[in-house]
Amino acid sequence: MTKVLINERLLEENDASVPYNDRGYVFGDGIYEYVRVYNNHPFTAKEHFERLLRSAKEIGLELNYTVEGLTELITELLSANGVVNGGVYIQVTRGAAPRDHAFPEPSVKANITAFTKSYERPYKLLEEGINAVTTEDIRWLRCDIKSLNLLGNVLAKEYAVKYNAKEAIQHRGEIVTEGSSSNVYAIKDGVIYTHPINNYILNGITRKVIKAIAEEKNIPFNEETFTVDFLKNADEIIVSSTSVEVMPVIKLNGDVVGDGKVGPITKSLQEGFNRYIDTLS
Amino acid sequence: MTKVLINERLLEENDASVPYNDRGYVFGDGIYEYVRVYNNHPFTAKEHFERLLRSAKEIGLELNYTVEGLTELITELLSANGVVNGGVYIQVTRGAAPRDHAFPEPSVKANITAFTKSYERPYKLLEEGINAVTTEDIRWLRCDIKSLNLLGNVLAKEYAVKYNAKEAIQHRGEIVTEGSSSNVYAIKDGVIYTHPINNYILNGITRKVIKAIAEEKNIPFNEETFTVDFLKNADEIIVSSTSVEVMPVIKLNGDVVGDGKVGPITKSLQEGFNRYIDTLS
Repeated sequence: MTKVLINERLLEENDASVPYNDRGYVFGDGIYEYVRVYNNHPFTAKEHFERLLRSAKEIGLELNYTVEGLTELITELLSANGVVNGGVYIQVTRGAAPRDHAFPEPSVKANITAFTKSYERPYKLLEEGINAVTTEDIRWLRCDIKSLNLLGNVLAKEYAVKYNAKEAIQHRGEIVTEGSSSNVYAIKDGVIYTHPINNYILNGITRKVIKAIAEEKNIPFNEETFTVDFLKNADEIIVSSTSVEVMPVIKLNGDVVGDGKVGPITKSLQEGFNRYIDTLS
Repeated sequence: MTKVLINERLLEENDASVPYNDRGYVFGDGIYEYVRVYNNHPFTAKEHFERLLRSAKEIGLELNYTVEGLTELITELLSANGVVNGGVYIQVTRGAAPRDHAFPEPSVKANITAFTKSYERPYKLLEEGINAVTTEDIRWLRCDIKSLNLLGNVLAKEYAVKYNAKEAIQHRGEIVTEGSSSNVYAIKDGVIYTHPINNYILNGITRKVIKAIAEEKNIPFNEETFTVDFLKNADEIIVSSTSVEVMPVIKLNGDVVGDGKVGPITKSLQEGFNRYIDTLS
């Protein structure tokens, strides 16, 4: 049976429980990260843990770990579960305390929960592309924090599932922000467009990798907002995340994107991403 | 030791835990209510449970309980804990399942958690009033759903605590919405103003009671938006909730409200509220 990490203890999955009054459970008062594992190597773990520490700071959560300490924790868990390809999820809550909105006493310690999953890369989808739908972005105004308040994302993803799509691309008014669990890119006339980094989207680690690859390949990477109409008229659309990597969208709201095939810039970025994985792992 | 209800089982508090992969813990994917108990009687329980069922419906959560069934559950818990004056908190999550944003298989059952608290009414604060501060409302666009995604509320309340206030009154742009855990009323020239019921605020049960009392007493109750400046110039300010009842705000951002004393309309509503409690309990 797979092991789950609760604070610094490795537990059998069936024994891994958390107190009923943990602030993660009653307020979603916590943050998380998901680190991909390729060929036994955690991928861009440093960037993920730096972001975790930033999220903690932004919500005033005291987390007495360094990037190195967090890396040790997940390395132990990944090893115990023998994960070769897959990923590790880690979340930190503000701890268990009598329910009261304000922060608890300083003596209340943060609770860490981590678990792993083994799976192969989504080769077929990466080659064939996915369907996506658009939906209103109803989330809070601090989407730059990777928090446990994910009900808006859950409802958006379920909306996608309802329409036989793999992702819901959200927009605030006319402006496209990001997917329910991904960043979004519209490619038009050889230029990549994506929402700038601010409070409306998550600063994706895969987005950073894509930006670096685009720069290396001299593909213009424009961090500016664009509308739903612009997206609908894009030559190519990509969604990216730690899980789905550089994922082509070939249908949007049932309409074919571009010529309905995975486009040349998407393929070029995928090739660059594959090389990047090989370099680091 | 106090008992905690997990689904239909009463457990000792120390044994009351939930699975690490409950969707409440990883997504805040759930809803809740808090019912006040006065003199052994749950107060407006029917209205609270009707709202719980509405919240469940709005997020597509299957909850196989009626208002009567929920009332039985909490009655058993309140009795076990001997609560005479206090309250009972109940939350429902979409259950425990492998982490995936989309809804889990229909076989995954909702998880119910409930606990109680014993305490007396906040007589001193009701008589003397509290301090409040204003802060930007950064929450999602479905604040009408009483969901577990409360990080925005938590951060607002902590902001209040930082400035020695009991409540943070939120505003979207210039428009006052509601407190971090209360509805807000500005009273000017004998008229009560409060944000209309829509997706930006919770449809408070105490707000409904206050509205009925105002109507009975022929005090105009205007459900229309007002600005932060209007609030600052109010003769009286009230925040209301199941916990704080009809609570006067006597200082806002450090400035005295009106003449700095609990005003006549506030006192009249408090008197009506006291009578309402006596009637029902």
